[in-house]
Amino acid sequence: MSQPQVERLDQQHEAQIRESFRRQAFMNYLGAEMAEICMGSCEVRVPYRPELSQQHGYFHAGVSGAVADTACGYAAFSALPKDSSDVSLLTVEYKLNLLAPARGEMLIIRAQLIRAGRTLKTCRADVFCVRDGRETHCATSLATIMAVAGRAA
Amino acid sequence: MSQPQVERLDQQHEAQIRESFRRQAFMNYLGAEMAEICMGSCEVRVPYRPELSQQHGYFHAGVSGAVADTACGYAAFSALPKDSSDVSLLTVEYKLNLLAPARGEMLIIRAQLIRAGRTLKTCRADVFCVRDGRETHCATSLATIMAVAGRAA
Amino acid sequence: MSQPQVERLDQQHEAQIRESFRRQAFMNYLGAEMAEICMGSCEVRVPYRPELSQQHGYFHAGVSGAVADTACGYAAFSALPKDSSDVSLLTVEYKLNLLAPARGEMLIIRAQLIRAGRTLKTCRADVFCVRDGRETHCATSLATIMAVAGRAA
Amino acid sequence: MSQPQVERLDQQHEAQIRESFRRQAFMNYLGAEMAEICMGSCEVRVPYRPELSQQHGYFHAGVSGAVADTACGYAAFSALPKDSSDVSLLTVEYKLNLLAPARGEMLIIRAQLIRAGRTLKTCRADVFCVRDGRETHCATSLATIMAVAGRAA
Repeated sequence: MSQPQVERLDQQHEAQIRESFRRQAFMNYLGAEMAEICMGSCEVRVPYRPELSQQHGYFHAGVSGAVADTACGYAAFSALPKDSSDVSLLTVEYKLNLLAPARGEMLIIRAQLIRAGRTLKTCRADVFCVRDGRETHCATSLATIMAVAGRAA
Repeated sequence: MSQPQVERLDQQHEAQIRESFRRQAFMNYLGAEMAEICMGSCEVRVPYRPELSQQHGYFHAGVSGAVADTACGYAAFSALPKDSSDVSLLTVEYKLNLLAPARGEMLIIRAQLIRAGRTLKTCRADVFCVRDGRETHCATSLATIMAVAGRAA
Repeated sequence: MSQPQVERLDQQHEAQIRESFRRQAFMNYLGAEMAEICMGSCEVRVPYRPELSQQHGYFHAGVSGAVADTACGYAAFSALPKDSSDVSLLTVEYKLNLLAPARGEMLIIRAQLIRAGRTLKTCRADVFCVRDGRETHCATSLATIMAVAGRAA
Repeated sequence: MSQPQVERLDQQHEAQIRESFRRQAFMNYLGAEMAEICMGSCEVRVPYRPELSQQHGYFHAGVSGAVADTACGYAAFSALPKDSSDVSLLTVEYKLNLLAPARGEMLIIRAQLIRAGRTLKTCRADVFCVRDGRETHCATSLATIMAVAGRAA
């Protein structure tokens, strides 16, 4: 199996997506940063803060879910035609399966577009937690995203 | 169809659950409050704050997901035997279907235990958004929660 | 809480839906019968046959999933305007949570439309198994259905 | 990225799993065959038959769901210790996202174990449909499987 081709976005499209991500107040509140965005995939990182934890001090599953959902939306967004500034992407549904406690200093969420239908996009996101430099696969998510015309993303 | 019976918890059990909820740092960070907890159900409320919004100013779907997941955990917790202080409840998976934009001044999340197996508990949560005093059904969730012995919840 | 209002379909619409169900070869193969169809809900029944079983002789979870998915589609179909003969309903996704072994002589699947968006419909189905005249709640499902114009259902 | 290592099962374990699959009456009824079983993964094939179709003559989504669920169970089963003849694997939940119409002469379902906890196993299955020798990715599934002691699989 060959390495999947990573296709860079053109600069303007990438800037537009990063700008859109910054307008997501909740992502800012979580401290989430878009580390990378390519055609059909993106990576978001969330440094640990005690405010993001559940009762054992690990990242709350809801952080993983919220960021995985958002990352899926941007993976879908990245594959829209460049002149899609009036298209909004709404989450239809997402499912998160938790695999291991998210214990560590950073969450890394990697999302990819699996299928781009005209209206509906199916995406997958995997959530890893970095502890002492090692990644553990903590959660996996499957989401449906809908492209709606007529509203800025 | 008759009104479902709401069984009150005894005071100590209720206090224990409310104390556990308060230890969830992420719920505090979201401003989530446990409004009600009964045997097999609970209601959590989240007042609107701009930090919880997505790009259109509505509640971010990730807030709904995170709180629905947590509310499901407490609905399951409420139905454990009273001497379960060493049992921890972990989310196995949850799915959130979004029904309408969560536009308004308050999210209300109502969770109920559907099935209490010995190890696994299945719960449903419905998310409503209150705007000008009217509730809109914004999301519905289905979750699997696992009871694990030997760790304080 | 009052009984939900059950709104009957007009005869022609009901006949059209029952005819569509009969064209689902796989439903025939499973022996599934549409017992009832109203506005926004339907009930499908599947008598037990050894061919539908898993290793312990109970109904295979896949039967519950397949019929729940189909019942959701028809619950959505029933709420379309009457002149929707060119609209096709496709399943986008469904999730099935299993609650108890489906041991008995009949599966009853009750589906209802939760939210009817223009394009997407969200439905829930509950699966019961009848044994010695008593129903056990065996599974619950949450599905997204898409209405697509231009193709007979 | 290197090819994932495929670890063969020992002959007796493989025979035991294939025997278990054959006892699944519903899989026989669908004409499903276990094409391959390795440590943590398996492939099941379902030749087209009109009885498995929905209204447009394609494979019914319920066939994909049922076989994906079963394939996930066997992917989990394959990774149990060899002396696990008294362990039964039960599906807790599965979700199926449909990506494209399943139009063709054969369904191929490839399942893999993502995470093997002691009690719970998380698996993914991808469903492909072969038409004129070409595979189309038709559906993807995420499932939770529970290992229960004391009952033959």
